[in-house]
Amino acid sequence: MSTTESAADNGVNVAALLDARNALSEAPEAAEFTWRATNEWLRGTHSKTTIQQYSGLGADHEHKSVFSYTADHPEVFASEDLAPTPVEFLLVGLASCLTAGVAAVAQNRGIQLRSVESKVEGKMDIRGILGIDADVRNGYDDIKVTFKIDADASKKEIEALVAQSQKRSAVYDVITNPVNVTVEVV
Amino acid sequence: MSTTESAADNGVNVAALLDARNALSEAPEAAEFTWRATNEWLRGTHSKTTIQQYSGLGADHEHKSVFSYTADHPEVFASEDLAPTPVEFLLVGLASCLTAGVAAVAQNRGIQLRSVESKVEGKMDIRGILGIDADVRNGYDDIKVTFKIDADASKKEIEALVAQSQKRSAVYDVITNPVNVTVEVV
Repeated sequence: MSTTESAADNGVNVAALLDARNALSEAPEAAEFTWRATNEWLRGTHSKTTIQQYSGLGADHEHKSVFSYTADHPEVFASEDLAPTPVEFLLVGLASCLTAGVAAVAQNRGIQLRSVESKVEGKMDIRGILGIDADVRNGYDDIKVTFKIDADASKKEIEALVAQSQKRSAVYDVITNPVNVTVEVV
Repeated sequence: MSTTESAADNGVNVAALLDARNALSEAPEAAEFTWRATNEWLRGTHSKTTIQQYSGLGADHEHKSVFSYTADHPEVFASEDLAPTPVEFLLVGLASCLTAGVAAVAQNRGIQLRSVESKVEGKMDIRGILGIDADVRNGYDDIKVTFKIDADASKKEIEALVAQSQKRSAVYDVITNPVNVTVEVV
């Protein structure tokens, strides 16, 4: 791939990703991943979620570290604000997914990034979760992501990086399209 | 509310939430919240997202603390696995939102919780994000949440707690239904 021979180094191993693409084209069953989390209630609206194990490429894997995150509700919801609200973790996922994509696409296109910053704003009418109005949804009405990127590229090339990242973003897809979720009690 | 006069104490101030519901029924503009995050690219697929400020009840607010989370891709994606993947943060949001809801609904129904545990599994075919097959979506195909709850209640009452939490969950709504997301470059 001539586009990967440039001097640009954003720290993404695009050659390995292209190899993976070739390998998985021949072995689609290896492309089935399962990501996992476990949650434990602490008290009130405060809980702890732990991430370590996932499956893919036909095997089970563990992250190098065990990652734990607490979530809570804020004081304006009469809670203790010991951690971010659950809906804010969706913004973490969205911003970090789009940014990783920008870095990977820039690498593939031979564009050196100097800085990538973004802000995400999600609007939500809490009359939904409070059960005030059945016509108001529980979740975000609208989310806006704004990127500010300094790179060795034109404005048009930078916009194209972001557009391609968005096109291949797993989190963007989950938020903008329906996903089937099953909730069970054992 | 006679249902809040029980001895059950799950640490959720249901009386305040019911007051908020009454107050916001009369002042819908105060129910408009904006949740925010900012992200900074570090290197490769590694980035840091920070959460502090949000708006609602007609004012700007700050969380008691500044919360920062790094995300990365795993070694099987030829990355450094310095943090969870962005899609795993969606599972953090989903588990913690449903669990907070279970605690709040249980409090409102006078049910004492002893423990609430859950596991979340999200299936994803990575041929989507790798651009191998245009018919494969980028995000999760399917997410399964399994709760195990020890409470002073029957199995049927516990299932009803989870069902009501799901019905009012902001994150469950965002994942199961489409949200409009706009991405811009400035």
